[in-house]
Amino acid sequence: MTTRDRIERRIEELVVRLLDTHSEDLGSATSERLCRAVADQAIVSSQRGKRLRALLLLTFHDVLRGPVDTDDAEARGALDTACAIEVFQTAALVHDDIIDDADVRRGRPAAHKALESFCAGHSPTPMGSDAASIGNGLGIMLGDLLATASVAIVNEATAPMANHGWMLDRFLAMHRDVEIGQVMDLAAERMPLDSPAALASNALAVSRWKTASYTTVAPIELALLAAGLDPTVCRGAAREIGVPLGTAFQLADDLLDVIADPAVTGKPVGGDIREGKRTVLLADALDAFDGSLPSEAAFLRERFSAPRRDDDDVARIIDAFVASGAVDRSKDRIARLWDRTRDAITDTSAKLGLSPDSTETLRSMCARFIPGALHVEISPA
Amino acid sequence: MTTRDRIERRIEELVVRLLDTHSEDLGSATSERLCRAVADQAIVSSQRGKRLRALLLLTFHDVLRGPVDTDDAEARGALDTACAIEVFQTAALVHDDIIDDADVRRGRPAAHKALESFCAGHSPTPMGSDAASIGNGLGIMLGDLLATASVAIVNEATAPMANHGWMLDRFLAMHRDVEIGQVMDLAAERMPLDSPAALASNALAVSRWKTASYTTVAPIELALLAAGLDPTVCRGAAREIGVPLGTAFQLADDLLDVIADPAVTGKPVGGDIREGKRTVLLADALDAFDGSLPSEAAFLRERFSAPRRDDDDVARIIDAFVASGAVDRSKDRIARLWDRTRDAITDTSAKLGLSPDSTETLRSMCARFIPGALHVEISPA
Repeated sequence: MTTRDRIERRIEELVVRLLDTHSEDLGSATSERLCRAVADQAIVSSQRGKRLRALLLLTFHDVLRGPVDTDDAEARGALDTACAIEVFQTAALVHDDIIDDADVRRGRPAAHKALESFCAGHSPTPMGSDAASIGNGLGIMLGDLLATASVAIVNEATAPMANHGWMLDRFLAMHRDVEIGQVMDLAAERMPLDSPAALASNALAVSRWKTASYTTVAPIELALLAAGLDPTVCRGAAREIGVPLGTAFQLADDLLDVIADPAVTGKPVGGDIREGKRTVLLADALDAFDGSLPSEAAFLRERFSAPRRDDDDVARIIDAFVASGAVDRSKDRIARLWDRTRDAITDTSAKLGLSPDSTETLRSMCARFIPGALHVEISPA
Repeated sequence: MTTRDRIERRIEELVVRLLDTHSEDLGSATSERLCRAVADQAIVSSQRGKRLRALLLLTFHDVLRGPVDTDDAEARGALDTACAIEVFQTAALVHDDIIDDADVRRGRPAAHKALESFCAGHSPTPMGSDAASIGNGLGIMLGDLLATASVAIVNEATAPMANHGWMLDRFLAMHRDVEIGQVMDLAAERMPLDSPAALASNALAVSRWKTASYTTVAPIELALLAAGLDPTVCRGAAREIGVPLGTAFQLADDLLDVIADPAVTGKPVGGDIREGKRTVLLADALDAFDGSLPSEAAFLRERFSAPRRDDDDVARIIDAFVASGAVDRSKDRIARLWDRTRDAITDTSAKLGLSPDSTETLRSMCARFIPGALHVEISPA
């Protein structure tokens, strides 16, 4: 069984165990049906992740511990902690989709929409607009239940570890960072568009708080803590590698939304533009046009202040992102962040006395966070 | 300083420390302003609680430990754990108010409404209906941040305690129970009204999961665990005392909504009826009328199936609750639950070898959960 399959199977086992209410006294068949629907949705929402975060944690942990018996308590604790990060991600996505009123997640109905449909189909009385409200309510509770489950997994998995209290502390700090990052993301939607520097600075900060925190920093830090390293060392290494890597991951994701082939990604091009997302690309394009082509800058500001953008707008905005040099600048930002990541991996490997093979294993795992075409462009460097 | 004042002050200290982002790099003034607004709202939403749950925990802990130095590590840990339950309650109420679309909480605007007003007042662009959506989004995040903070408080407070892992386990089980209870509460709104027995059974189950779990069971269990008792003993005692007491607390709350003097409670009479809440009172009234006065039962079913109930409906429904004997039956249910609670306190006190004075201290603390007029009625028994 591949590591990814083991992760997948274990996530489902944990979610079933922590959300199932099968043998408990819920007072009525209606409550049983609804709790069962929420637990089933927890499983569905947990599926189809790329599991990059869990793989990152396990790769760092394996490299530090050397070849291990996958059945020893520490290896099982590391696997469960890796799964807990994925469960937390699902919790965060369920709440995000309610906040963004998103219909689709990982190719299937968003959790609150699926629960809305369930209720509309099983209600004894006509529900009308009430169905959306109960869908949102159940979605909020599903996200809460998954967030609670993610901490319970870490508490149990790390109980025998020397760094038990520390691992919980860092796992909860990760929760907090992502939650604050989501507040900052809501702030971004409301920022004035006059200062490209402020827009870029905010978008980069959102990448750190909302993405790098749980995508790269926490997996690395928890891996090192699980291996029993000193908490200060763990924190330093995780931040030095994880902050540039996680930021590059988000910039690459934003960039692929604009330049990727929809046939490859399975997503329509320009989805972020349609939603009006305030990306670093937008900030860089405004910055360039303010100095060279004010009419184009005005066009971008006008379109991004509007409630929505149609297909023609999206095509013209993508052209503007390319013509302004913003696309190239993002590629350059990503390449520099990747350089910082690589240097930090080398540095950490030296500090921890890792072999060249181990260092290469960490480097190639980290490189998987820079997706697709961009990866090819930067890897020879 | 009274214990309640100490609780109040400590909750504010903890919420400020865990939600403040003052010295952190948030990328822009807009993000700083919005994160500050969320942290300020966390403080406001945390105020004005009755703190009965925290007092229950501290009373049980003090009785078990005997006179303690309030500055020793265990006493400080117990105080913080007591505060963590109050912080969790605030988190749950913030999410509940979004789900119920409630405007007011503890006499002030509900958190998501207050955040909506903040955004409407500070937006550079007109927001229109968007303000409600950002208010809900920020409210969901505020609830998440407070829930995360509540666990972080317990992790830190209980680190030196022998039962550290157990206390976290039970605190997280409490989160889960309340979240499942909220799903069951949403189920209740959708139950057919044909079976009074199913309605009563569901309402009582919601009282156990959504109310007793964090109101009485968890405070008692965490108090005993903090004092270092065996986890199985803690669990048994907490359930035997806490389940009947917490259920009685909820029934009394439902009953006071119908019979209390608005001048005393500060709340309009019949608020639950207006919202269409499926209480044990409704179940008992339907049960009585089904056998004696089918036209009244039909009236109740028709009114509770409607989207809303006006002042005349509320007055007539209250009369029906009284005439059917449902009000008396609830008083009787509460009296019997209180008897069970008192017996369980006596039983636990004997097992733990407590003095008669200590037993009386526990009993009078528990009696505070049966509010107002009802308390007078049952206390001589």
